[in-house]
Amino acid sequence: MDLSQIETPALLLDLERMERNLERMRARERALGVRLRPHLKTCKSAEVARRIFPSGPGPITVSTLREAEQFLEHGFNDILYAVGIAPGKIDHVAALRRRGAELAIVVDGLQAARAVALRAAQLGDRLAVLIEIDCDGHRAGVRPGDRELLVAIASTLKDAADLRGVMTHAGASYDCRTVEAIRAMAESERTAVLESAAVLRAADHAAPVVSVGSTPTASFAEHLEGVTEMRAGVYVFQDLVMAGLGVCTPQDIALSVLTTVIGHQRDKGWIVTDAGWMAMSRDRGTSAQAIDQGYGLVCDARGRPLEPLVLVSANQEHGVIGRRDGGSDVDVDRFPVGTLLRVLPNHACATAAQHRAYRIVSHDGATIVDTWERFGGW
Amino acid sequence: MDLSQIETPALLLDLERMERNLERMRARERALGVRLRPHLKTCKSAEVARRIFPSGPGPITVSTLREAEQFLEHGFNDILYAVGIAPGKIDHVAALRRRGAELAIVVDGLQAARAVALRAAQLGDRLAVLIEIDCDGHRAGVRPGDRELLVAIASTLKDAADLRGVMTHAGASYDCRTVEAIRAMAESERTAVLESAAVLRAADHAAPVVSVGSTPTASFAEHLEGVTEMRAGVYVFQDLVMAGLGVCTPQDIALSVLTTVIGHQRDKGWIVTDAGWMAMSRDRGTSAQAIDQGYGLVCDARGRPLEPLVLVSANQEHGVIGRRDGGSDVDVDRFPVGTLLRVLPNHACATAAQHRAYRIVSHDGATIVDTWERFGGW
Repeated sequence: MDLSQIETPALLLDLERMERNLERMRARERALGVRLRPHLKTCKSAEVARRIFPSGPGPITVSTLREAEQFLEHGFNDILYAVGIAPGKIDHVAALRRRGAELAIVVDGLQAARAVALRAAQLGDRLAVLIEIDCDGHRAGVRPGDRELLVAIASTLKDAADLRGVMTHAGASYDCRTVEAIRAMAESERTAVLESAAVLRAADHAAPVVSVGSTPTASFAEHLEGVTEMRAGVYVFQDLVMAGLGVCTPQDIALSVLTTVIGHQRDKGWIVTDAGWMAMSRDRGTSAQAIDQGYGLVCDARGRPLEPLVLVSANQEHGVIGRRDGGSDVDVDRFPVGTLLRVLPNHACATAAQHRAYRIVSHDGATIVDTWERFGGW
Repeated sequence: MDLSQIETPALLLDLERMERNLERMRARERALGVRLRPHLKTCKSAEVARRIFPSGPGPITVSTLREAEQFLEHGFNDILYAVGIAPGKIDHVAALRRRGAELAIVVDGLQAARAVALRAAQLGDRLAVLIEIDCDGHRAGVRPGDRELLVAIASTLKDAADLRGVMTHAGASYDCRTVEAIRAMAESERTAVLESAAVLRAADHAAPVVSVGSTPTASFAEHLEGVTEMRAGVYVFQDLVMAGLGVCTPQDIALSVLTTVIGHQRDKGWIVTDAGWMAMSRDRGTSAQAIDQGYGLVCDARGRPLEPLVLVSANQEHGVIGRRDGGSDVDVDRFPVGTLLRVLPNHACATAAQHRAYRIVSHDGATIVDTWERFGGW
């Protein structure tokens, strides 16, 4: 099917770019010598998961129990649900475990640990639990090496549940300005969990799992000695935030939104399209980076960037393309009404979430060769 | 079903609040003496549409052809598709018209008009067309009263299509700071289309439809003389942006996201929850208003605001609640792990779009009495 035959906006996926991204992270996995547990919250697609694991289901990370459920149905049973457990979800976790999921959950405080221990005992399921460590002050987690709290959580869990170890996520790596800063953050991710695992082990609590990860830190960590697994999600598609961090280039970004020109504001140098925030999301993750990409970097229909054109503003179903610097000097006649363009996303997770399917584009970018469903919700 | 039995995050809809919002806009419709053509891009739900039109399907506005298709299936056939038409969508429009939709489309330039005229002639369908007028420099549209362009578009359409009139949308009303400013904007909406309709009529082009609208301008316009219909969408649910504009109060907001406390960062005065941007959207529409509500205003489980608590930051499935002023003086012990809270959205359209269904809450806010599906996609 020719690109012009699908109704816009539509989410395009370039498999060749995706495969290169997957291979690059596999090389990191080999070089660092730690198992990769990809975060499938980005793709939410069984087809993409199959490409990530060409030789059969491997360990995965998820952000919702719906993801756990969907991927379990496709044979993925080694699952980390990496969001602090809400007590009301424990029964759902146990139900998934009865269906064969080796599903591990996360706690970062005594209240959650007590809720888990209580319900685990009642259900007769020694739930697998990791303690979340806060390596960067970003959101959740126990302070690294907080002996009193770590040991209290471990002791609370001990009789009823199975404490597997510790995990952390350097979400603040997205705010780094240099590769050196990302490297330093990878090292604080590593030391935060190692220090915490050491505290647990010194108190006679086994902590076999030491889990770190984010796409930036997984891409630039110098070594991960002592770490047993790393997690990353957005690397599968990459995006403009990652390009701004130096993790990839815009040419590596496998996702884009196909859009059609519907009008112009000639005096302002604006090209109006049918991809607004409903198609792109409201994510403005590049706004604090050196290059602010607006709501996305504009490319021609084959995916070649049309610098300096970005989506300067977005309403629900309208996108306004203009110069990144706000200048009105744009030759809008190059883009008559009906022209197809692609827009690269700031944040792949957020943009993909606005769509129900991936349209797979051919190698030359001219045709749609397949459609892969993606799921959403909770 | 008790509130505690549904898995969070979940989108709650308070029907009583919604009915009050509907009634208030009906009163405006009567007072202004112009027909309301509600914009159903906000709700995307047949059940909500039925409440908007208790005595049977009326005229509606949509932002996608999927909305047109879905609502047509539920008996709504008087439809305005209020986004400039992409040439590739004209055949879809014609197909919907063959199925009984009196579906009108929008153009704002000669290129689109030529594409419409050409395809209308080929299809043998005199498509119904409105010319979009740019009343506020916000995005699309012909400058008000631009005689040369308006007449050229009308002449281009004349032989093949049915020019119905003019429409405009004061999207910039969302950026107003005072009710007086909104009132002034309502008046420029009105004069922009009236002036443009007069130009067309003077050139012997009938322009029976003169359409304006946005929730703020529909709420505060002093009169709409000469206007034949007004459009508004977000009024059905209302939201924090509307509250910030004085269009409603937080107590009028019918939508909220139910979330569960999953942890705390005591030193920072943070309460961590399971509603992040996936549940709230990335919309930060209140960021430039007098009261910045972060990613949403936090309420107790019954919907009573817990000032000054807002969602200060959001990751995909994590929301961090804290004081609006960033202060760490929060009694987090009031919100133990497992506590249910509600978060009011900045932008109802954007938050609703993140969910597949509305959970209808009882009058007292304690139970879920029904579930209404909503659709998405294009």
